[in-house]
Amino acid sequence: MGEFELLARLRERLPPPGPRLRVGSGDDAAIAVPEGATATSVDAIVEGVHFRREQSSLRQIGHRALAVALSDLAAMGAEPGEAYAALGVPADLDEDGCIELLDGLAELAAATGTSVAGGDLTRAPALTLAMTVVGYAPAPESLVTRGGAQPGDALAVTGELGGAAAGLLLLERVDSPDVENGMLVARQLEPWPRLTEGRALAAAGAKAMIDLSDGLGGDATRLAEASGVAMRIDAAALPVAAGVAEVAAAAGREPLQLAVSGGEDYELLVALPPERLAEASALLGNANGVALTQIGSVAAGSGVEIRLPDGRLLAPTGFDQLG
Amino acid sequence: MGEFELLARLRERLPPPGPRLRVGSGDDAAIAVPEGATATSVDAIVEGVHFRREQSSLRQIGHRALAVALSDLAAMGAEPGEAYAALGVPADLDEDGCIELLDGLAELAAATGTSVAGGDLTRAPALTLAMTVVGYAPAPESLVTRGGAQPGDALAVTGELGGAAAGLLLLERVDSPDVENGMLVARQLEPWPRLTEGRALAAAGAKAMIDLSDGLGGDATRLAEASGVAMRIDAAALPVAAGVAEVAAAAGREPLQLAVSGGEDYELLVALPPERLAEASALLGNANGVALTQIGSVAAGSGVEIRLPDGRLLAPTGFDQLG
Repeated sequence: MGEFELLARLRERLPPPGPRLRVGSGDDAAIAVPEGATATSVDAIVEGVHFRREQSSLRQIGHRALAVALSDLAAMGAEPGEAYAALGVPADLDEDGCIELLDGLAELAAATGTSVAGGDLTRAPALTLAMTVVGYAPAPESLVTRGGAQPGDALAVTGELGGAAAGLLLLERVDSPDVENGMLVARQLEPWPRLTEGRALAAAGAKAMIDLSDGLGGDATRLAEASGVAMRIDAAALPVAAGVAEVAAAAGREPLQLAVSGGEDYELLVALPPERLAEASALLGNANGVALTQIGSVAAGSGVEIRLPDGRLLAPTGFDQLG
Repeated sequence: MGEFELLARLRERLPPPGPRLRVGSGDDAAIAVPEGATATSVDAIVEGVHFRREQSSLRQIGHRALAVALSDLAAMGAEPGEAYAALGVPADLDEDGCIELLDGLAELAAATGTSVAGGDLTRAPALTLAMTVVGYAPAPESLVTRGGAQPGDALAVTGELGGAAAGLLLLERVDSPDVENGMLVARQLEPWPRLTEGRALAAAGAKAMIDLSDGLGGDATRLAEASGVAMRIDAAALPVAAGVAEVAAAAGREPLQLAVSGGEDYELLVALPPERLAEASALLGNANGVALTQIGSVAAGSGVEIRLPDGRLLAPTGFDQLG
């Protein structure tokens, strides 16, 4: 079976295209008729860099590629529209493997209302998925950039932190028998983009937002720099995921290290006026039952300070990146 | 220098963003405010598959990655808008190398009015550039798909064929001393997307269009299949590029083999009503001096027939792909 036959077989498995899409996969380009504003982001994952086939099913790899791209749309408060996949296929991945990979991607696309509108298939020395995602909003002002945080804003995160880093430790054979592994490993291998939450936060008056891909410390630094403000984070307030303490102990690490520098949790870090916190929290709880936790505040100045329970200050680079 | 510093250094070298772009590279996603319809396409090039660093400068590789992606927009008759680059960087490519690569890409972006609006940078085992390009048209009906060719339409190509394949032979050390190598090698290493020509052809009533990336035979087959028609091509009418005959002879190949199956010429194959040919040809000549040559016609039925000067019929798959 050649490239074109495989493409046709892959196309059959995609969810039906959304209302904006006039021509989907199969022509020189996809045709859409957008209204309002678009948010477009690109994210690539590469075997041996972002995942290993020994640790992850092909379905999970397909899911993850789309999830990390959609997470950027979540951080803008955009509604997902179309996804485009550039797939690099190594010699040892057969056609059924390509289909399993696409099935994982297509399932998340269907679950999030994303149309897979096009792509490219090529040989490559390592399995590579470069995803481009296009999201929509009624107007550019409805989208939340990184640059709008102001002194006095509250700083909050969705969901829980440290789970993905703990999951990675478990995959790397750290043994922690008292922990239910499945949930933490899933945080690492099958991240879920906080799309509903991102739109709810945008509607609740979010001033600046970023998704936590590199870890709270580093991503908070980028948010602070883009907004030209300082951020003060109370480490004791961080919503550390269940089981992280046990896995950290088994690995000889601090639970806070996983929560602050672990990365790949794909939660949202948001700055918003403190008087909007309750409303935002209620919107999130009602939508998906995801918690919104205030972890600090925005101040004049620059830099990110993380205050530990014992009063010591931790620079955001105080813990090394994991992995 | 880390990823974020390199990204900042790369961003400085990009042409200024176009009018539709409200937020460019550097946030979670780029923000645009489109009007009318969008055409979006993805194309990846991978070292060892699509190019070799021994044969091509980094600047040429950057140019080529964007050129082959923009060629798909040319084939829709779209005006180029934004480009997004996912760059996979191998261990032996340093930061200056990344910048040289991006300079080639940025130069073509500036020359074509394309804004480089975002991207992703990751380690990879081989140099990889996955480009997503977004083009615009006043309405979806202004864009030319592959599906509109009808019996009675004339079939025409822009420019010249076989040059890229001859250039590849020269790069692979076929010796043809009487040929000026530069032009043919440039056809292979620095293809130019026929954007102005694609828009002129759309304005002149093109019914179906495709860019010649895989070779005339294969791409004509895809155009015929998408339109549900047959195509009859007169091999004697093909505009074979100067020097192709000499290089083919030196390599023990037929010039027509290079023109029909060589691929990578990135010319446009277009079906349009015969009475619009003269107008279309004049539009092209006035714009860039690129010729439009009628090479055959569209008929009822299916399949592509290429009639050789000696009367024999050649199936579009009659020549193997080169390289």
